[in-house]
This record gives sequence, structure tokens and C-alpha cells, in this order.
Amino acid sequence: MRILVLNSGGTSIKYQLFGFRGGELVTVAKGAVESIGQPHSLLKFDVPKQAPLRKEIEAKDHAGGLEQALRLLVDPEIGPLSSYSEIDAVGHRVVQAGEKFRGTFLIDDALLMALREHSELAPLHNPPNIRGIEACRRLMPGVPQVAVFDNAFHKDLPDYAYIYALPYEYYEKYGVRRYGFHGISFKYMTERAAELLKVDVSQKRIISLMLGSGTTINALAYGHSVDVSTGLSPTEGLVQSTRCGDLDPFIITHIMRKEGLSLEEMDEVLSKRSGWLGISGVSNDLRLVEEAAEEGNPQAKLALRAFTYRAKKYIGAYAAAMGGLDLVLFAGGVGENSSVVRAEICRGLEFLGIELDEERNAQLKGEGLVSRPEGSVPVLVVDTNEEAVIAQETYALVTVKSMLELKCVDQSSRVLNLESGG
Amino acid sequence: MRILVLNSGGTSIKYQLFGFRGGELVTVAKGAVESIGQPHSLLKFDVPKQAPLRKEIEAKDHAGGLEQALRLLVDPEIGPLSSYSEIDAVGHRVVQAGEKFRGTFLIDDALLMALREHSELAPLHNPPNIRGIEACRRLMPGVPQVAVFDNAFHKDLPDYAYIYALPYEYYEKYGVRRYGFHGISFKYMTERAAELLKVDVSQKRIISLMLGSGTTINALAYGHSVDVSTGLSPTEGLVQSTRCGDLDPFIITHIMRKEGLSLEEMDEVLSKRSGWLGISGVSNDLRLVEEAAEEGNPQAKLALRAFTYRAKKYIGAYAAAMGGLDLVLFAGGVGENSSVVRAEICRGLEFLGIELDEERNAQLKGEGLVSRPEGSVPVLVVDTNEEAVIAQETYALVTVKSMLELKCVDQSSRVLNLESGG
Repeated sequence: MRILVLNSGGTSIKYQLFGFRGGELVTVAKGAVESIGQPHSLLKFDVPKQAPLRKEIEAKDHAGGLEQALRLLVDPEIGPLSSYSEIDAVGHRVVQAGEKFRGTFLIDDALLMALREHSELAPLHNPPNIRGIEACRRLMPGVPQVAVFDNAFHKDLPDYAYIYALPYEYYEKYGVRRYGFHGISFKYMTERAAELLKVDVSQKRIISLMLGSGTTINALAYGHSVDVSTGLSPTEGLVQSTRCGDLDPFIITHIMRKEGLSLEEMDEVLSKRSGWLGISGVSNDLRLVEEAAEEGNPQAKLALRAFTYRAKKYIGAYAAAMGGLDLVLFAGGVGENSSVVRAEICRGLEFLGIELDEERNAQLKGEGLVSRPEGSVPVLVVDTNEEAVIAQETYALVTVKSMLELKCVDQSSRVLNLESGG
Repeated sequence: MRILVLNSGGTSIKYQLFGFRGGELVTVAKGAVESIGQPHSLLKFDVPKQAPLRKEIEAKDHAGGLEQALRLLVDPEIGPLSSYSEIDAVGHRVVQAGEKFRGTFLIDDALLMALREHSELAPLHNPPNIRGIEACRRLMPGVPQVAVFDNAFHKDLPDYAYIYALPYEYYEKYGVRRYGFHGISFKYMTERAAELLKVDVSQKRIISLMLGSGTTINALAYGHSVDVSTGLSPTEGLVQSTRCGDLDPFIITHIMRKEGLSLEEMDEVLSKRSGWLGISGVSNDLRLVEEAAEEGNPQAKLALRAFTYRAKKYIGAYAAAMGGLDLVLFAGGVGENSSVVRAEICRGLEFLGIELDEERNAQLKGEGLVSRPEGSVPVLVVDTNEEAVIAQETYALVTVKSMLELKCVDQSSRVLNLESGG
């Protein structure tokens, strides 16, 4: 069985083609288009044991970029497939279709309609997701398309954790509530922790920090996501690359007045000009902010400190929400690679049982424990893999579906047999 | 010495006249006007050992209401004073004049100008404060007017705790940062805790919850306010009576679009129609929300749970900010009177050393400990008194000022003596 996984973002698309060897996932090929909508877009394509391909292309929109990228899969010279029909299913990461759709679903017209209807809630995510689905339907008609919802992981949030203190009608009319993001990553991180530490994660209270350019922190109590820092949108919560995270709500109308901004311009400030870029004025890339801070840039130092301080407070808050803490997980580009960020976040949390091993933390490459063996709360760094989760979920749905169909056929034939035999 | 203290709110004014007996504050009279701007306003006046006065009056604005209320002080039959000239100084609670004014100041034209200039940052507080100051200047010319800033208590907040993750220019141009509110109350609460528990509060990490219709939570580490839940405005932080507290910033522009609201209408929703009123749909009075919850109203239950849950998370967050916790203080109408709220907030925080004594908590009237003696973190309920702090600060400033003036006279005469004698 071959499963294609698509992960579409605001200005990029990533995909990965998986095969299954003895029940294990194997990557057959990986591709990506970056800087979609810019004069020059970058096409990437990687097949194990082949030279990686990097090429400038013209990709005005997601559909055009995706078609060029997928075509390489069936390229006579470098493609691993001879035809799209060798793909058994496509799994799409999708973000938001309201409270009804939270799990893994076969994509039909009703689901597509729900994604369109909820585009306002996820303006950066739903439109590219929809275009990716449409392109795949066109290129490989008849191949099952599966939607894996990123917020399914957070579907058990208690009502007092997901409700905002606004007039209740906004929840009823518009579905304004906390949904949470990065759920696919949190699922992977938890399963990986179970594997690496050989613990029963359903018996633990876990705080997971997904620190990429988007950042989310999650409280997982005994197998259930009970709180999450991103909310209705990915803007809330931690300081992010270019998103502001938590704010005094009054600031938004105040700045709109002072600067004469429209709603669209204000959204742009909050989602693209804020975060550690906004405070530091240096970059949306935290590595460059860290470098500037080391060289003494005061705004860069402040950005780094504000980011790690808020993450530290969230750890305390989520420990309080769960009545304690058993395990801390870090992932994402920043979570995996910045030992300074991990150290700053964990500093002063000894009263929660968190004690980093300075040397281990500084020297770690890739996955592993960074806490002291004698500390009561293990702190583990994980290399997250959203695409693998999407492939597994897609595989499970398609397989169960075929089994159900077989069962239906089987049962109806049995009924027939009974009828004919009785 | 007689000091008049004025505390002006959005639609009300409270005042209190203090005398000093052997260095101790004594209340001479108390007055208030409620529902200013409504067709019928309520005038209250209380003098110890006299029958309380309650009277409907017409008070179109703060100036008119205040004049009627103050006139009772010099009323020939019930007033304790024969003339306003017996007042030695007036202390005003003021909220916001930017980063420069954070302390206790003699009010001059420059300070009044700064209050006017910062009215946009405190639209509910500064305009009535200014009108109160102007009325007192008119009624008692020559009497020193003193401004006691509510956010002075939070002036030591570290930069990483007060900066928002927005473009840095908003901080530089408009002073957009966390200032914090309820500082006068936190000062009283801390001093009262020192008195009641006989502890050195400058050696403790204290979390104080000021839970009235406005709610603020504060982290005080070794004598310094290091974090506070209200920010640029009082809207941020905990769920409040009618203010929303923390929100996904994206919600604001989203609701403005969906409902077609103007900036003013959105501000009104966030500050007057949200909070536990918004979720419950029952009342801005938490006692009525509690009653409805007891009768099984699901939205009232949710409002109560969302309020106490968020307060619990803030306790965890601030413990993390301070690296631990030594003392918890409750005050304000809700903090003092609702044993249910205190119990819900503290439930599950045993891992921080917080253990309520159920019986003590349920039976407490007024001030006292509600924690178990064996719990490591004492939890104390305090009856806060902002007016007393304002009176003391005003007394100190006026006294020091007269001493300094005496000293100046003294020194200049000495200089003269030296000159003539040299």
C-alpha cells in the first residue's frame, strides 16, 4: 500500500509518499514547494539514494505549485511511480471545520463544504488545504482522499477550558471557542515518548511544547488533552515567530485607533509582524535572534526572555490545571535545536521536579533526555513527524473502511444465503 | 490633621474623611454617590454613631454628584466639619499617566495634563478622576491635592513580564505595555498579612487575588511585584464581572467582522457584556451566578468553573514565575465572601503546598486563615481598604513636604547666617 501525505501551509506545500514494509512506514519520496505566490518558488524533491533535486519554478498559486511537485512522482527518470493509480490513498492535514469534524474522515462534498464554511476561522490554513484536496481529486480521480484534523487531539478539552468569557451567543452562533492546534504533533510526541521511555503515557500528566515558528503548549492528563495554548486561531498563547500570542484585548482596538488600521491590517500586524520578530526587530528566525542577543542587542535579549518566560508560566499553569506534572516533552525546530531556550524555560522550575542536566542539554543532537536522572520529572526532546501520523491515520481509515465494506458484502451475502437457504 | 480620600469609578464616587488619633487612622465620615448619569442616583452618607443617610438625588455627572455629596461634610446639622478649610489634604486614587508618574505626587497642572493625555489608556478611570480633582480644587482652593497611583505598586515589573510580543515601536510610541491595576489593594493586603501573620513579607513569595467585580492577581517576590494579570488596561487576565480577561486576539477582529461592530461597540462588548455575566447570561453579581449554578443552570455553572479554573492556572503560572510559593492572599467582595470560589480555586493545588481547611473556609466571616495548619502555604483572607492606604500615602507626602519646606527655610536662613557671619 502506498499513501501520499499532503501538508499545505500559507505559502508552502510539503508532501511525502509512504510505503508499508511489514506494517512499518517507509518513506518512498518527499517533495515540497516553498514561497508560493512569489516571483520565484523553490521546488524540492528527495528520493532515498538519489541526488536531491532543487529547482526554481513559477508557482502563482497552490494548485499550480502542487501539480508541478507531484508530477515528479511519476517522472519517467526520477519518479518512483509509473502512474498516480499506484497511490492507494491521500492523507491531508486539515485544521478547522468546526466542532462536528474532529477526527479522521473520508473527504466528500459535505466535508469540503464544511472546510469552506470555516475558512474564516482558519484563513491561513483552510484555503490552501481545500486547493490541495481539489488538485488531488483532479490528478488522481477515484483515489480515496482522507482528512486528518489537527485539532482532533484536543477534542476532549473540558468546557471550562475551551470557553472564552464573552457573550455566550458567540459560541453558539459562530463556534467561538478554544480548538487548539499542533494536535498531530502532540500525538506523535506522546507516542514517541512512550516508545523511548517505555512508560504508559495514559497514566501520566504530560506537558508538551511544540516550538517551531508556530508554537503551542499542551497539557495531556492521563491520555486526554485538557488544555492547549492556541485557541480559536493559532495566534493565542506563547510568543511565536511572527504571531503575538497572549495580549490585553484592549490593545487591539487601541492600536487600530492610534494607527488608523483596518481589520485586515490589524490581523496582519498580529500574525505577521509580532512575536519574537516584533520585539527584537531582528528576524522571524530564532537562531538569528539568539545570535543578536549574544552580541548584546537589547531588544533581541528581551524577545528571547519574553518568549521563554511566557513558556515557563504556561508550564506552571498547566501543572496547576492537572494537579501536578510527570513528564515534559520538547519538539519543533526551536524545541529540538535550541539548548538555550530549553534551559531558560526550565530554569527555576525545580519546585515542580524539573531539573535539566546542563551538559546533556547543551550536547544533545536529535532526540533524548535532557533532565538529570535523579530529577523526578523527565524532560525529553523528540523529533516530531506529522506526516507519519497522517499516513498511519489514513492507512487505518482506509483499511477499516475496506474491512467494513468486505464485512457488509459478507453479511449481505450471508443474509442472502440464509434467505435462500431458509 | 484631616485627610479626605476620593475614589472615583465609572459611574460612582466613594469618599472617606480620616482623622489621625495618636498616629492611627480614624474614619470621621464616609460618603458615596452611585449610579451617576442615571435618572436616579443614590447618595449615601455615614458618620459613626449617627443614623446612616440614604437619599435619591439627581446627579447628571461626576462634578454635580460630588458637590452634593461633599456638601454633607459641612452640613450644619449632620456634617462633622464647619468648613472645608478644616481639610488639610485630599488624596485621589488615580490609575494611569504613563511610565513617568508611578508613585504619590502633589497634583499640579503638569500632572493633570498627563492624566488627560493618558485618558485613552484608561477611558473608564481617568476622566472621572480628573473631574473629581477639578471639583475639589474648586470647592477647597489652596488645599493640597495628592495623586496616589494605583499602578505604582507594579513599577518594578521586569521588562520581559511587561512587554507584549508586538512591534516594539508600539511600546516606544504609545507606551503599550503591562502596567497592572489594584496596586493600592495589593499594598494593603501585603501589609495586613504581615500584621496578622507576623511574618516578614519582604522574605516571601506571595500570590494575591483581588476578586471584586474587577479582578486582578499579583505575584510579589521578596517585596517586588514581578507580574500582574491586568495589563495596559484592566480588561486582561482573569474572568471578571463584565470584562472578558484573556482572549485569543484573533477573536476581536473576527467578531467585529461577523457582527459588523465599530471599535467602540467592540470595547463595550469586551468590558461590559463579557466576563461571568457573558458566559452565564445571569448577572454581573457573582452571588446570583452562584445561586443559579446551585439551581442547576448550566451556563452559570460553566461561568463559575471558567472563572475559578483560570484563577487556578494563574496561581500555577505565578508560582513558576517566582520559582515557588510561600503565601496566598484573597480579598475583594468575592475573595472575602465566597467560600465556594476560594475552595474551587485551591482544589488540586496540594502539589504547591496549598491545602484549604474545608470547615474553616466555609465558616469564615471577615478576615482569617482558611488553610490547614499543617499545610506549608498559608492561605489568608483579608478585608482590603484602599482608602486607608491613600490616606496614609497622602499624609506621608504632605508631612514630608512640610518638613522639607521647613528644612529649606532653616537651611537658607543658616546660609544667610553663615554669609553674614563669615
